[in-house]
Amino acid sequence: MKLAVIGGDGIGPEVVAEGLRVLRAVHDKVETTDYDLGARRWHETGETLPDTVLDELRGHDAILLGAVGDPNVPSGVLERGLLLRLRFELDHHVNLRPVKLYPGVTSPLAGDPTIDMIVVREGTEGPYAGAGGVLRKGTPHEIATEESINTRFGVERVVRDAFARAQRRPRRKLTLVHKNNVLTKAGDLWSRTVTEVAAEFPEITVEYQHADAASMFFITDPGRFDVVVTDNLFGDIITDIGAAVTGGIGLAASGNLDPSGAHPSMFEPVHGSAPDIAGKGVADPTATVASVAMLLDHLGLTAEAAKVEKAVAGSLAARAASAGQPLSTREVGEDLAQRAVAN
Amino acid sequence: MKLAVIGGDGIGPEVVAEGLRVLRAVHDKVETTDYDLGARRWHETGETLPDTVLDELRGHDAILLGAVGDPNVPSGVLERGLLLRLRFELDHHVNLRPVKLYPGVTSPLAGDPTIDMIVVREGTEGPYAGAGGVLRKGTPHEIATEESINTRFGVERVVRDAFARAQRRPRRKLTLVHKNNVLTKAGDLWSRTVTEVAAEFPEITVEYQHADAASMFFITDPGRFDVVVTDNLFGDIITDIGAAVTGGIGLAASGNLDPSGAHPSMFEPVHGSAPDIAGKGVADPTATVASVAMLLDHLGLTAEAAKVEKAVAGSLAARAASAGQPLSTREVGEDLAQRAVAN
Ligand SMILES: CC(C)[C@H](C(=O)O)[C@@H](O)C(=O)O
Ligand SMILES: CC(C)[C@H](C(=O)O)[C@@H](O)C(=O)O
Repeated sequence: MKLAVIGGDGIGPEVVAEGLRVLRAVHDKVETTDYDLGARRWHETGETLPDTVLDELRGHDAILLGAVGDPNVPSGVLERGLLLRLRFELDHHVNLRPVKLYPGVTSPLAGDPTIDMIVVREGTEGPYAGAGGVLRKGTPHEIATEESINTRFGVERVVRDAFARAQRRPRRKLTLVHKNNVLTKAGDLWSRTVTEVAAEFPEITVEYQHADAASMFFITDPGRFDVVVTDNLFGDIITDIGAAVTGGIGLAASGNLDPSGAHPSMFEPVHGSAPDIAGKGVADPTATVASVAMLLDHLGLTAEAAKVEKAVAGSLAARAASAGQPLSTREVGEDLAQRAVAN
Repeated sequence: MKLAVIGGDGIGPEVVAEGLRVLRAVHDKVETTDYDLGARRWHETGETLPDTVLDELRGHDAILLGAVGDPNVPSGVLERGLLLRLRFELDHHVNLRPVKLYPGVTSPLAGDPTIDMIVVREGTEGPYAGAGGVLRKGTPHEIATEESINTRFGVERVVRDAFARAQRRPRRKLTLVHKNNVLTKAGDLWSRTVTEVAAEFPEITVEYQHADAASMFFITDPGRFDVVVTDNLFGDIITDIGAAVTGGIGLAASGNLDPSGAHPSMFEPVHGSAPDIAGKGVADPTATVASVAMLLDHLGLTAEAAKVEKAVAGSLAARAASAGQPLSTREVGEDLAQRAVAN
């Protein structure tokens, strides 16, 4: 396996080191190349993602990213210049985000409900296209537009991906989340596409929820969701709600997939670079390790993926049961690696 | 007070009747005119909001709306044709939504945190403008766009309104919620406007949160918010999260304001027409009554507004303490009216 590694900033390199530890514990043919990208590089060179680096990344089987950013980089620079550029250039149209409350993990929701869904967020169009413009900037007559671009091609491929995932899950339910009563043009395209593809999947129960109502149900009735398919911006928001109700962004894993395999997919914890705790060895690498499980699964190493996934569940349950000191980043990584091998 | 009343569909007329009962209990000069708008009218006549009706509405001091819609109206018809048309035609640029956990009300959040904020949602532009288009509809080459339109004029007036509200609250804190790392053009306009207006309000603590992070903090740390100002679509979503964590959409009040007074403002519970329980006399009118308190406040009847607001808090606490049968719609209305008069 040829793996590109972008440790990034803050706690990124620390959690990625543990992700690699666990990966190597279950798979002995990992060849890594480190890429220095993120806030530090930008401060030093002004570069976010040079074309040459992008070309090299293309030659890998997958990418593992820690986290990028620090408070001194203006908002948008690394997002547009690095993170979103990777998603767009590498056609990561399926942004996959499991939302799962692991046994032992405390939810902010009373009564610890059962939560086990997966969100298929579109990753390469919608309001993230970067289209729009500004006129008369800085004057009282300024106007700024943002354009959400949605194509049948782009919508259909993620909808198909989501149906295929729903087919492989016991509950076989798919919920489209949009706002088709207000965003009538894009909403109609999404709704029609889901209805048409649904005809090929008669076993699957299909539901529609407006984004505002879905955001509410993620809190009041998360058990009603199994596979959720949604646009780029709604997906950004509802997956953070999902992370919040399942124990926090510190545990949330994600994959930016090109399911066709034409480009390497990228896996990353949802959390940021957390500069306040960087270098202290206290960051929790669990979300990175859960992302490694997704990476293994994506590359067809399903037995190894299952081992890592089981290690994550086991470690979280064990940590919940123990009243001891919180473990260090490395201790959690070593525990996860041991569990993964033993599974 | 010349009040236009749109009972609407389902439970709408039932909850509005109780809202009016409480209004009349604290203010004896209410002259109402009923307007028949909503799903029933649309089914019968195909009309959503005839121009003549709109013109008549303009002649009132305020509008009280129950809820409109039924499952047989296609998505978007009443939203675009009636609800949003009212907001746009009557320049309801401040969509005001208190998010408050009343004593005694059970939150789905563990530990019943303190939640007391107010969301100032922009109501007349952004992604709700209705701009955008569709090409090659129904073909594999379909493309659908939605355009978010943001003007300095439109943003500045709601930002100023939000700062003025923050100034009147003890904590004096304002949080801008946007997604300026991705929606860089509109986000920059919003951020710059907040920074500039903030200079005139040195007492106010100003914070910025991305919409995804804010959605998370509404759940994990809602106490950090006091006044939130945000765009139309983010406001739609986060106020439903706010409703969810404060006991459900059934208790959430809202006002669609033109603070200039040039057009009548409109007040409505956030919940829908709930056709499943319509006509049974079991709908909870509390959100409508809380909206009536906002109406009174908006019209400068602050003492009366405070009485109704206090009645709402008292009734919710009393209901939480009693283990009896749930009260009927009318019983809740009568209780609220009595309490309001006694306050
Ligand atoms: C950092 C940002 C560009 C990104 C997004 O908005 O997609 C993040 O919030 C995420 O969800 O991965
Ligand atoms: C019904 C719909 C048009 C409306 C909106 O999206 O604004 C509703 O969700 C609300 O929040 O008042």
